[in-house]
Amino acid sequence: MNTPAIYHRPESEFAYLYDADTLHLRLRTAKDDIAKVSLLAGDPYQVDKKWYEKSQPMKKILSTDLYDYWFIATTSLTKRLSYGFVVEGVDGLQAFYGDHGIYPYETKYLAMPNNYFRMPYFQEIDRFKTPNWVKETVWYQIFPERFANGDPSNDPKGTLPWGSRDPERQDFFGGDLQGVLDHLDYIEDLGINGLYFCPIFEAESNHKYDTIDYLKIDPAFGDGALFKKLVKECHQRGIKVMLDAVFNHMGDTSPQWQDVLKNGEKSKYADWFYVREFPATYTPGKDFEDANDLTYDVFAFTPHMPKLNTANPEVQAHLLNIAKFWIEEYDIDAWRLDVANEVDHAFWKKFRQTCDAAKDDFYILGEIWHSSQSWLQGDEFHAVMNYAYTDAILGYFVKEEIGLTKMVSEINNQLMLYRDQTNQMQFNVLDSHDTARLLTETKEEKDLMKQVMAFTYIQPGVPCLYYGDEIGMTGANDPDCRKCMVWDTKKQDHALLDFTKKLIATRKNNAKILSEGAVHWKQVQADSGTIIFERHLDNQIIRGVFNTGEAPLVTSLPGEVLLENLSTQTKEQLTIAPKGFVLTRIEK
Amino acid sequence: MNTPAIYHRPESEFAYLYDADTLHLRLRTAKDDIAKVSLLAGDPYQVDKKWYEKSQPMKKILSTDLYDYWFIATTSLTKRLSYGFVVEGVDGLQAFYGDHGIYPYETKYLAMPNNYFRMPYFQEIDRFKTPNWVKETVWYQIFPERFANGDPSNDPKGTLPWGSRDPERQDFFGGDLQGVLDHLDYIEDLGINGLYFCPIFEAESNHKYDTIDYLKIDPAFGDGALFKKLVKECHQRGIKVMLDAVFNHMGDTSPQWQDVLKNGEKSKYADWFYVREFPATYTPGKDFEDANDLTYDVFAFTPHMPKLNTANPEVQAHLLNIAKFWIEEYDIDAWRLDVANEVDHAFWKKFRQTCDAAKDDFYILGEIWHSSQSWLQGDEFHAVMNYAYTDAILGYFVKEEIGLTKMVSEINNQLMLYRDQTNQMQFNVLDSHDTARLLTETKEEKDLMKQVMAFTYIQPGVPCLYYGDEIGMTGANDPDCRKCMVWDTKKQDHALLDFTKKLIATRKNNAKILSEGAVHWKQVQADSGTIIFERHLDNQIIRGVFNTGEAPLVTSLPGEVLLENLSTQTKEQLTIAPKGFVLTRIEK
Repeated sequence: MNTPAIYHRPESEFAYLYDADTLHLRLRTAKDDIAKVSLLAGDPYQVDKKWYEKSQPMKKILSTDLYDYWFIATTSLTKRLSYGFVVEGVDGLQAFYGDHGIYPYETKYLAMPNNYFRMPYFQEIDRFKTPNWVKETVWYQIFPERFANGDPSNDPKGTLPWGSRDPERQDFFGGDLQGVLDHLDYIEDLGINGLYFCPIFEAESNHKYDTIDYLKIDPAFGDGALFKKLVKECHQRGIKVMLDAVFNHMGDTSPQWQDVLKNGEKSKYADWFYVREFPATYTPGKDFEDANDLTYDVFAFTPHMPKLNTANPEVQAHLLNIAKFWIEEYDIDAWRLDVANEVDHAFWKKFRQTCDAAKDDFYILGEIWHSSQSWLQGDEFHAVMNYAYTDAILGYFVKEEIGLTKMVSEINNQLMLYRDQTNQMQFNVLDSHDTARLLTETKEEKDLMKQVMAFTYIQPGVPCLYYGDEIGMTGANDPDCRKCMVWDTKKQDHALLDFTKKLIATRKNNAKILSEGAVHWKQVQADSGTIIFERHLDNQIIRGVFNTGEAPLVTSLPGEVLLENLSTQTKEQLTIAPKGFVLTRIEK
Repeated sequence: MNTPAIYHRPESEFAYLYDADTLHLRLRTAKDDIAKVSLLAGDPYQVDKKWYEKSQPMKKILSTDLYDYWFIATTSLTKRLSYGFVVEGVDGLQAFYGDHGIYPYETKYLAMPNNYFRMPYFQEIDRFKTPNWVKETVWYQIFPERFANGDPSNDPKGTLPWGSRDPERQDFFGGDLQGVLDHLDYIEDLGINGLYFCPIFEAESNHKYDTIDYLKIDPAFGDGALFKKLVKECHQRGIKVMLDAVFNHMGDTSPQWQDVLKNGEKSKYADWFYVREFPATYTPGKDFEDANDLTYDVFAFTPHMPKLNTANPEVQAHLLNIAKFWIEEYDIDAWRLDVANEVDHAFWKKFRQTCDAAKDDFYILGEIWHSSQSWLQGDEFHAVMNYAYTDAILGYFVKEEIGLTKMVSEINNQLMLYRDQTNQMQFNVLDSHDTARLLTETKEEKDLMKQVMAFTYIQPGVPCLYYGDEIGMTGANDPDCRKCMVWDTKKQDHALLDFTKKLIATRKNNAKILSEGAVHWKQVQADSGTIIFERHLDNQIIRGVFNTGEAPLVTSLPGEVLLENLSTQTKEQLTIAPKGFVLTRIEK
């Protein structure tokens, strides 16, 4: 038995309250090493044979290239639980694993109360809670400068005619909030019920990540009254609104930073930033070369984004006021937090409390690209931008960087990094303003695009569509992926649009199972490229069959077809061409 | 290579800021499986060959029965770090381990920025900080009802003559705060510089864990004015004061609970507790039998200690006010938190903020018997009662339940559960009001008692002496361990007292190295029972040589002897009899 590979961590993604009365427990073991795992559990103040000789079987739910994960949902009438694991190796050996490690499976070790892990009390207040509406949401990401120009009167100087060229880094095309308002029918018709806006606050650039004033809509986008109207119209259509908060850094043209440049150490904002030595000097337009070059801390190495000192109570008050302002005055439903990992936890905990106090069921999404457990304990974010997850999908389906087995391994690995309710909140993007567009990544193979979208939309987490993907827009990496939205219907791909609508509808019509259902890989065949991926909840199954190989895939067809591409059906036999897929719903 | 056993967890005890600029990184591998570990690290925005081809060697610092732990202290000029590990198996294989698991050690994997773990920014505000005075403290635990009766006028009805019998569960002997005041010279002379008081607030029982009024000193112990005087006198002598806060539950004779009993659901305190069904019924003096029997949640199964609902803002305000009151009005230095694990994290975070705001360098100690990472992240407690650690020591030295190898393994396991600075704060008790006394556990073998005390006093963490141990008091489990302190000098063991003074002095005179020094097991011989345990800091070593075997131990004597028992020295040769030890200080 590979005992050193056995792992559990109390009060973490391995042991957490799922709902008020249900404790989820996971155990990690080396892949194919353990034949059986059982749970021994009972009240910590009554450790006795009554319970430690009555074990509950755990289920092997997911595997990665290195590990098997075992799971059980359990409860406790006293709301307290001591628990340990009995592991039985494929070699037939038995062991007991608890708070002090591995012991032989013998009564003398089982009888020692301190040998058990503890969930000392089921604390509802500490439980990771989820805003339920997120589970039913399909997001649409809008880069406001490029979605639609509804009001030419606010176009910045030098604005280019809409779509007149592929965008260059400093271009302006006049997109604004009126443009979004004008196209809410389109968005609603698409089935979208959540809008994620890239920054809309006053800033110099077209992307607005270099904020000047967080309390003001950028004049080229509109004003507060217009934004209020937009939120209201969205809400009337059942569409939620998420704004982008760039709290890691400010723009260098902000009055605060300008004051620091002007007054140096004597500036009342001197402590708002991490200035290493006064005066803070830099060459405009030129990145710092390395650490020795920094006179102040910045985002990456760009001098135009001085890092905010969020440990400074004044900065905290300033930013928390902003967080509250847009919720209370404009009724937004969610904040997306830019470069969230580089801001301190103490600040995010206060941020969470501020948002929770301002609005029930508010959603907080952090931009973090790496493993994110410490932000996802229930008192900071609800989710992160799930790049690590979708990267694995793209890496196999689209970029052919990894094999099928590795993709499954990495997906499962990601799922096991977080609590189940966290996974339900994760924000799944296949492309964005920071990456090439999906259609470009698929080398404009629309069937492949449909296949990878279908696969992603039935994953745990909530999908987000990048504006224009649905009508076949292309675009290489930034700035090319930020082209003007194509509104000329003759230039839109109506078949793709139609497909996307159906996919969105499928996701929404099956929101509960696609959010909460257990993940089950029914079939994964690396040689033929067959993937049968299922979600299970109660007596229902959603099944996705994907042909990622090069030969037709022939299989049976249980259940009702929800959506398909490149498939044909005769009686009970289903044939799926390469790049095709079928989604079905099955009643057990 | 046992790759599934390799483990690291970002932002945890495996990766944390030790001081503002120093990042501590640990890696866990299967025991004796890995020959070499190196760190690859650099700025996340400059992932390039410049740094990922320049590795830093990590050091194998400690091993358990299953694992080796590798360590490095590092830094980053940009205050951001991406890092990964190169592991080289004893089988000669090489692998790269990062945020997405194990990869072959090849440039294409090293060049992928997302493959690295991240410390996104060195956040001083999130760092686990320590009150430095704790490192220099030797605590003395006082059970006030049994330490000294300084004022017979406040004795409760039925008080028995001091020490007139071995205590029974409900006995009163008249101990009080005046008694402590009267003996501060004794305590100071002992070398003690921290007093840990079991509860002193108004309560029914002699142990006072069933609080009636948290804002009032129990009348049998004295009053606020007397306590204020006591704290002042302690401070004048350089002695810190820690009180015991019982916030998990109240006493059933508290006005709040009595109101619930009387008014049921209509009580304004109905939500202060977890009442399952009104009326809350119970049979006085009789524990609830099991979960089905509970009409309200309690400590363990005792109806006399109704559990407080610390998620209720009114309860929070009430308890936080108490926390602040004793700090601000009486200037206490520390809170010890009873049954701390069963109170929610949200509350403890507020508690920490309240204490931090009330007094600089305040110390918070939680009573938790199991692994405690989630309370020791830097925003709740500074330490826990380190039973898990001292149990291993007692289990080998005294109770003979485990072998030497297992003790070392368990000590190392405990050390690797927490950050280094946390280990420095841990509260090491060999006995207390909840256990049999050390001398009784050693079957009254005083040499063994001295040996185990010496071993414990040179461990990371701070030692605590239970009142009366120093003069040879005995006592089996509660209530026998709560005998009246023996003040008759003819009945005190002066040799033991003298030894204890020297040991305390040794701990205090070498506080820095015994707190911050690295742990090094120079020799561990299970067959002969030889232990050479060292602490290393800068160019100094404190070495403890312990003979836990049955034959004399002969060794050389480097350095200056700090303290010894049962040893003889000739020229450079040192002989230590069974149960003996020698502590020396060595300059490198």
